[in-house]
Amino acid sequence: MTTDSPDRPEARLLQAGIVLPSLPPTPIGSFTNVREAGGLVYVSGQGPVAADGSLCRGKVGDDVTAEQARGHAELVAGNILAALKAQFGSLDRLAGVVKLLGLVNATPDFDRHSFVIDGASDLFAGIFGSSGIHARSSFGVSSLPNRITVEIEGIFELAT
Amino acid sequence: MTTDSPDRPEARLLQAGIVLPSLPPTPIGSFTNVREAGGLVYVSGQGPVAADGSLCRGKVGDDVTAEQARGHAELVAGNILAALKAQFGSLDRLAGVVKLLGLVNATPDFDRHSFVIDGASDLFAGIFGSSGIHARSSFGVSSLPNRITVEIEGIFELAT
Amino acid sequence: MTTDSPDRPEARLLQAGIVLPSLPPTPIGSFTNVREAGGLVYVSGQGPVAADGSLCRGKVGDDVTAEQARGHAELVAGNILAALKAQFGSLDRLAGVVKLLGLVNATPDFDRHSFVIDGASDLFAGIFGSSGIHARSSFGVSSLPNRITVEIEGIFELAT
Repeated sequence: MTTDSPDRPEARLLQAGIVLPSLPPTPIGSFTNVREAGGLVYVSGQGPVAADGSLCRGKVGDDVTAEQARGHAELVAGNILAALKAQFGSLDRLAGVVKLLGLVNATPDFDRHSFVIDGASDLFAGIFGSSGIHARSSFGVSSLPNRITVEIEGIFELAT
Repeated sequence: MTTDSPDRPEARLLQAGIVLPSLPPTPIGSFTNVREAGGLVYVSGQGPVAADGSLCRGKVGDDVTAEQARGHAELVAGNILAALKAQFGSLDRLAGVVKLLGLVNATPDFDRHSFVIDGASDLFAGIFGSSGIHARSSFGVSSLPNRITVEIEGIFELAT
Repeated sequence: MTTDSPDRPEARLLQAGIVLPSLPPTPIGSFTNVREAGGLVYVSGQGPVAADGSLCRGKVGDDVTAEQARGHAELVAGNILAALKAQFGSLDRLAGVVKLLGLVNATPDFDRHSFVIDGASDLFAGIFGSSGIHARSSFGVSSLPNRITVEIEGIFELAT
């Protein structure tokens, strides 16, 4: 497989017309976005940043709908990819997605967490193809940093 | 050690009289139950399915007791094993349990999360013996997909 | 690098004047504090134990301030190190910190989770230096075992 193969992540990204944030997310504490260990890449929990640079805030099931939150999960996925690209230079360095942990800042009676986090999973499946199919857990939390709506962390595989 | 050794997972399962669900759980979104990477096996967060096929729903500490929820955690462990068996053909392909993340859909004043998740940990210890002893975190969440009572994800080791 | 190199974890710990709990935390259920797999070390979610041996309990944002909770996160980090030392004899067996998952038992409107968990991250960075820089997720949960304020689990790298 050559670098410009149409089934590699960067080519798929281009083909899908997805534009990643120009800057990777700035960690809001004493940690780093991306940490490599044992052939896997751990990406810190990321939040949704809108096109105007503002954070998407609120409580899903109350002032934010499940549909809006699903869009936020897609934004989080874009931020995760931006963090990976900043670290490795190219997404083609990555072989696939291993696992996601998807947190939804939701009301106690909310039950569509999976629908929300699919916004991120579907984007990764589009970019990484069959090796983008991952294990996942999603659940509702009572609060998130800066009152963001969705936070997602991920484990990725490096290409050998 | 031969395949029918009494201290292998399948033999222990049989001996304990545990009957796994005949079908693995159906992922409720764009993810897969089981993902292998770096010699480890990541299992997606699973929920409790009762004998009649219905989900165990409710809020632990309110309409569900800690004792009932512990039983649900045991059901979740059965679902995790069913997912692993569907993936690998036999549980004997697995060497042990590395880590569990146990989420309890609980009231804000609930404090017996560990008692609840022990329902799963004890079952795994029974099936995998000393290599079933795992690291674990458990905590309370304000909501879970489909309002299930307990969700557990796991990391397992493959036999070499 | 020799065992008494000033930039190894045990030497840094001594230099920083940090005294670890004399006993590792006792698991409150059917799990173990530390589990090794694939070259990585998984540490179970630990809680904050005060100098007098009592647990730090309460709801952050209500009867516990963010500043107090940050101190609790530092105590949790000490407990994690005590668990690792009990397992491996010396912290010099560890090469670095890979990832933390930081849970804050917080009110629904709390938004300073990252500030709280920095209490642990900063301690690890001080002990492990540049290889102590880790990926991290932090979020708020509606309840924790024994009503503790903070729970943190970690993944560490073994020295080769």
